[in-house]
Amino acid sequence: METIKKICEGNVRAASRLIRDLEDKLPHARPRLRQLFKHTGKSFIIGITGSPGAGKSTLTDALIAELRKLSKTVGVLAVDPTSPFTGGAILGDRVRMLRHAEDEGVFIRSLATRGALGGLSQAAGDAIHVMEAMGKDVIIVETVGIGQQEIDIINHAHSVIVVMVPGMGDEIQSMKAGILEIADVFAINKADRAGAKQLHTELASLLNSAPQSAGAWRPPIVMIENLYEPLTFVEQTAELAQKVAEHYAYLQESGQLDKRTERRAMMQINDALRACIMEPVIDNLTASGELQYLAEKIKNREIDPYSVAEEISKRFLKSGGINDIDKK
Amino acid sequence: METIKKICEGNVRAASRLIRDLEDKLPHARPRLRQLFKHTGKSFIIGITGSPGAGKSTLTDALIAELRKLSKTVGVLAVDPTSPFTGGAILGDRVRMLRHAEDEGVFIRSLATRGALGGLSQAAGDAIHVMEAMGKDVIIVETVGIGQQEIDIINHAHSVIVVMVPGMGDEIQSMKAGILEIADVFAINKADRAGAKQLHTELASLLNSAPQSAGAWRPPIVMIENLYEPLTFVEQTAELAQKVAEHYAYLQESGQLDKRTERRAMMQINDALRACIMEPVIDNLTASGELQYLAEKIKNREIDPYSVAEEISKRFLKSGGINDIDKK
Repeated sequence: METIKKICEGNVRAASRLIRDLEDKLPHARPRLRQLFKHTGKSFIIGITGSPGAGKSTLTDALIAELRKLSKTVGVLAVDPTSPFTGGAILGDRVRMLRHAEDEGVFIRSLATRGALGGLSQAAGDAIHVMEAMGKDVIIVETVGIGQQEIDIINHAHSVIVVMVPGMGDEIQSMKAGILEIADVFAINKADRAGAKQLHTELASLLNSAPQSAGAWRPPIVMIENLYEPLTFVEQTAELAQKVAEHYAYLQESGQLDKRTERRAMMQINDALRACIMEPVIDNLTASGELQYLAEKIKNREIDPYSVAEEISKRFLKSGGINDIDKK
Repeated sequence: METIKKICEGNVRAASRLIRDLEDKLPHARPRLRQLFKHTGKSFIIGITGSPGAGKSTLTDALIAELRKLSKTVGVLAVDPTSPFTGGAILGDRVRMLRHAEDEGVFIRSLATRGALGGLSQAAGDAIHVMEAMGKDVIIVETVGIGQQEIDIINHAHSVIVVMVPGMGDEIQSMKAGILEIADVFAINKADRAGAKQLHTELASLLNSAPQSAGAWRPPIVMIENLYEPLTFVEQTAELAQKVAEHYAYLQESGQLDKRTERRAMMQINDALRACIMEPVIDNLTASGELQYLAEKIKNREIDPYSVAEEISKRFLKSGGINDIDKK
């Protein structure tokens, strides 16, 4: 109970420890998160995504500065793409954010991929919950790319910034559908580079061609130029912050905020189910050596993976449940 | 049985139909795949991945041409990053491969993301199985990026080509760990662009700094220049094909091929378990409207997602199984 109280008071050490314990799956961590849950749901969650090297951390840093000017407290969760084998986090240029490390109103944590079962979305959701309970006004979730898992992570956010850079010709073409679905605000970073204007034109015409219902949000495109002209940069990132604030106002007025919160809840159930159902089954098979044994048999074509999975599901799933499912 | 026979004879229509039926989860499709399984396991599977716009399809096209010169039959599976909402595939510049469409020795299919449960890796594995049963000598799996799901997909391959392009400064830095783990051969495409040499240097020094055991494979870096100089391009892509062939020889001699096949089997079990356990549970909750109801309660903070998942897992998982798991 002491921990819960501390976290709700914004205690950094207690919050950090719980996030780490959740990542490490220590047995006491989950019940604590459960107690924290009723203290969550008041923060505005911003997602920021884009290709590696697009400058997401720099923009996150600038957004923090803008939010601090308004005396908003900020939590930042940086989700790193890492090897599924080594499991280490790459901090990269995240050190740039260190200028906020001394600021009590800012709490920054990194998460790395663990295992191949796609638990990263849940780990991100857990860390966001802890930051919400700490009372952070705004939480920024930074992730890389638009793979399925990254979309799962970004779906925790109320408002999503997609960062693009000029110089990757057919990027828009091939990312099209995915990007249009998730982006609420576009930032074209390094906009002093060749091709920035063309990227803007392509993106704008893509947005124009998308079906648009009356009163719906139309994602604005913010150009962010040369980082070596500090004044321009500050002005432009202030505009980015402004656009995100406008999107937040839109979400509230249109009732969309409620819908996004519900979408997030659906995903939380999905994530939690995987942790409660899939992971114990896999852990069980791994610990007994059965997984290895079956993989060997599949390799030798003595048995097929589909029959293996069905056999296992019969052992773990209730027959009533299975029958219900089959009859559907 | 007729279908099985036809597919094993390389019949394109029968194979296409089964792949589509598997994607659509028609009830007869899975048992057929099961019967096909014993006819699989003889193809060499090449994975090719990289950022959007890196030119993967162009290189795949060139690899097909090289393989056809050696009279190898080829299957190509293009996995598209698409919206989890609309579910449509983006063919993009894949039309370039159309020059092989009339060639009976080449079979090309695309797969798109379906749903948010990460079933894409399984769908890819299924389609590869069908192509293996067709007797294709080589199967090329093309996917985008290095997100977790893309790594899952690429893990179906025996040999992985990572395609990079100059001009994304810190890409290497931030992709580092992931890339070193999955790449067997590097291709620097559009190598006539500024920064290609620097990219080569950085990559080489990264490879040098990685721990290297005696006799282990050292990923070669192949530079692929200006597409408008056809002769150079053909020479360079021939070198790429040669490096992949060398890697295949290495895998066979070192016994690594066996290990990779086993790794693939593990993943197949994982994928099949998700289909047999997670999907039916989620489908069941969705059909009854319970998922929506619970999401609403979570949104209002009346209940937390962790308790919900535990409750559900008790209903679907056998208590014996759960207890075994808890006691661990």
